[in-house]
Amino acid sequence: MTDQSDFLEVTLDRIHSALASERLSDALSILLDLHPADQAEIFNLLEEAERDLLFSHLDIPATADLLEELEDEEVLEAVESLPTDRLADVLDEMEPDEAADLLGDLPSTQVTEVLAQMEDRDEVLPLLGYPDETAGGLMTTWYIALRRQTTSTQAIDFLRQVSPETEVPYYLYVVDREKRLIGVVGLRELIVASPETTMESIMDPDVIHVTVGTDQEEVARIMARYDLANVPVVSDQHRMLGVITHDDLVDVLEEEATEDILRLGGIETGPLIDKPYWSQRIYDIVRSRFVWLLILFVAETFTGTVLRHYESELQTVVALSFFIPLLIGTGGNAGSQTVATVIRALALREVRSKDFLRVWWREVRVGILLGGLIGITGYFRSMLWGVDSQMAFTVGLTLAVVCTWATSVASLVPIAAHAIRIDPTIISGPLMTTLIDGTGLILYFSLAAFVLPQLK
Amino acid sequence: MTDQSDFLEVTLDRIHSALASERLSDALSILLDLHPADQAEIFNLLEEAERDLLFSHLDIPATADLLEELEDEEVLEAVESLPTDRLADVLDEMEPDEAADLLGDLPSTQVTEVLAQMEDRDEVLPLLGYPDETAGGLMTTWYIALRRQTTSTQAIDFLRQVSPETEVPYYLYVVDREKRLIGVVGLRELIVASPETTMESIMDPDVIHVTVGTDQEEVARIMARYDLANVPVVSDQHRMLGVITHDDLVDVLEEEATEDILRLGGIETGPLIDKPYWSQRIYDIVRSRFVWLLILFVAETFTGTVLRHYESELQTVVALSFFIPLLIGTGGNAGSQTVATVIRALALREVRSKDFLRVWWREVRVGILLGGLIGITGYFRSMLWGVDSQMAFTVGLTLAVVCTWATSVASLVPIAAHAIRIDPTIISGPLMTTLIDGTGLILYFSLAAFVLPQLK
Repeated sequence: MTDQSDFLEVTLDRIHSALASERLSDALSILLDLHPADQAEIFNLLEEAERDLLFSHLDIPATADLLEELEDEEVLEAVESLPTDRLADVLDEMEPDEAADLLGDLPSTQVTEVLAQMEDRDEVLPLLGYPDETAGGLMTTWYIALRRQTTSTQAIDFLRQVSPETEVPYYLYVVDREKRLIGVVGLRELIVASPETTMESIMDPDVIHVTVGTDQEEVARIMARYDLANVPVVSDQHRMLGVITHDDLVDVLEEEATEDILRLGGIETGPLIDKPYWSQRIYDIVRSRFVWLLILFVAETFTGTVLRHYESELQTVVALSFFIPLLIGTGGNAGSQTVATVIRALALREVRSKDFLRVWWREVRVGILLGGLIGITGYFRSMLWGVDSQMAFTVGLTLAVVCTWATSVASLVPIAAHAIRIDPTIISGPLMTTLIDGTGLILYFSLAAFVLPQLK
Repeated sequence: MTDQSDFLEVTLDRIHSALASERLSDALSILLDLHPADQAEIFNLLEEAERDLLFSHLDIPATADLLEELEDEEVLEAVESLPTDRLADVLDEMEPDEAADLLGDLPSTQVTEVLAQMEDRDEVLPLLGYPDETAGGLMTTWYIALRRQTTSTQAIDFLRQVSPETEVPYYLYVVDREKRLIGVVGLRELIVASPETTMESIMDPDVIHVTVGTDQEEVARIMARYDLANVPVVSDQHRMLGVITHDDLVDVLEEEATEDILRLGGIETGPLIDKPYWSQRIYDIVRSRFVWLLILFVAETFTGTVLRHYESELQTVVALSFFIPLLIGTGGNAGSQTVATVIRALALREVRSKDFLRVWWREVRVGILLGGLIGITGYFRSMLWGVDSQMAFTVGLTLAVVCTWATSVASLVPIAAHAIRIDPTIISGPLMTTLIDGTGLILYFSLAAFVLPQLK
């Protein structure tokens, strides 16, 4: 990692100095020697003027490669300066799924103009109608479909003819006359087959596939479960429409992990999810965080109501208030731990809704053990602090009960959310902490009233 | 998802009833009709007696397929009943990386015995020495290496000969006489090449590769960055050792996401990370959570010390204590949001250590805006509650300051951890919350002393 950062740093310096001394072709050739993924990174580190200069001198294939690696927002910025005919050529050169994503982000008047000038618009047009987060939004139309009577010699001849850029070169899909998917042939089976063998006789008829409307999370789950590098996409009538490739799987997995992590941190991810950190607008960040901060704020005012209810107890024994942050903090922490565990187990499908009782029983046992340990610690810690033993006992007992309570509630709420088809990560750590705060305080004052002679 | 759960449910019932009426071969054929990944799921849902019965009747290839799909612990349980010679046969049939993982979990005496009886031990032995979380621990030795003078006809003949189970059938690696990696040929280039073409003339000499000791997270990052379905692994002397396949990438991405999510929830993941929820022992769960609960507990006792320091203020204005949970809760929530954002940006390499000032400045602006909004909300909410306007002003102002403070601290601490090579997820939401609690209270009482006439 450090090696690579260093390498990019050095390369960036070389490009800077080539441009400074007006050696444009040197700068270009340094950039083009890199893998497109590295080109994209360098590109983002350049000054805007340098970027515009280099971009305007890239040929069409190089422009297409670079655009495929840039993030959505960066692409839009880059293509602003391209004339329509050149943009059409670049889009022809791009992978159809990437080209469709780009078109999807352009204003609709421009889309019509560009499409009119594209040669391969038929590859891209069918992709424009699908929502981004479905199988249709992920798939490419660059795949090879053959008929069942095709021989392996014919197939190999066909491969020689078609452009070598096809994104899915390792599987050939076999379709019937209605274009319905009926089998798959690996390139390897094709190579070792004798010349007159038909596709039908070497194909695997059990093709794991997804339908075009399948949610991207489900697509990722299927590809991960069955160790698939590619998965074909069919219509509801089982007609072959496209293929989703392994790089899309990686993107989806990363996006889902981002969503889970941000939500668990108490952020509504809506406007931010597919934007890299530096492209997020401050306004969108504030909006997406304020929603939850406000919900949690309102929920947390409940703890104030609880405390007001115990005003006289607080006045009588002011030491009670010293332990409030400790008690609600520990309860919240125990709850966060459980929420993180259960949400991850749900995401990996290790836990299902119907397992709620088993999960609850497991977490209750964990909660009792943790509560016992932390309760004993709390008792001795309070004694060390010099409070009397009844106060220390109240604190220890409350810690034990709050831990158990927090753990058991935090195990059930995400499963309940999952069961009613709400994303369980909405039950974030902060939300659980806030919910447990109020109930923890009620427990605390009830136990105190029971134990402390001053409050009797 | 629901469809598939239903399908598995129905299949499970069919197997149950076949076994109940002693139709063992029916049960076996129902099981074997499934994809091995589904077999594994069904297998885990069976009663132990049913499982043992079916497992003992699987043939060697079916046993190997099933074991490849089971989790580590389940594999150990399953193979307990296998005699050594049969286990050796099964391991011969398994992919070498999976076989090596299994051997790594067996007691060493058994490993020696089993290896002695294996035919293909040479494929597995080189894999046994590498730590699980490195490139060496992920790679398989089932790959095809050719010399540069090999012609495409010879290569195709070779492909026909070697077992069709090779895990990496889509790339052929070209090595020199020292076995150093010098190029890669896609099956597709091989197919379309004329018969006498040598590997040297069609290979791509720029092979992206990793060295054997590379950390798995870095391997995943490289594969994701360059959209690789496979990556070759070389020794420090650049000798070809193995190949990491896309399914390993998915496993690593899932494992890393699990680790991040659990750590952010305040769990030390050590003993739990590669165990599915139901295989985690209660003892390990309690241990991994208690460590952090205790650290946070000790940190949180600091808030008690702060409160004791303000005992007289609390006695004079008991209403001050009503707002404690609200203030520290909001500060903690704002901190958790920032921590989640920054940690994710670090994980996706969108933010680097040297960006700390830019990140801080961004988050400070977000914090000021959020603080302003929540402070105003807090002021009016307090007025509604009926406290006097000076108290309400104290609460609102503290909320605003705490929010800004929490956001800016929470942006710097994960980057600092990253810079000194500590996993930034160790700065979990709970830890940040706890740290902000104490400092938030000091702010609160300082502002109160300044604003409230009773405390002057």
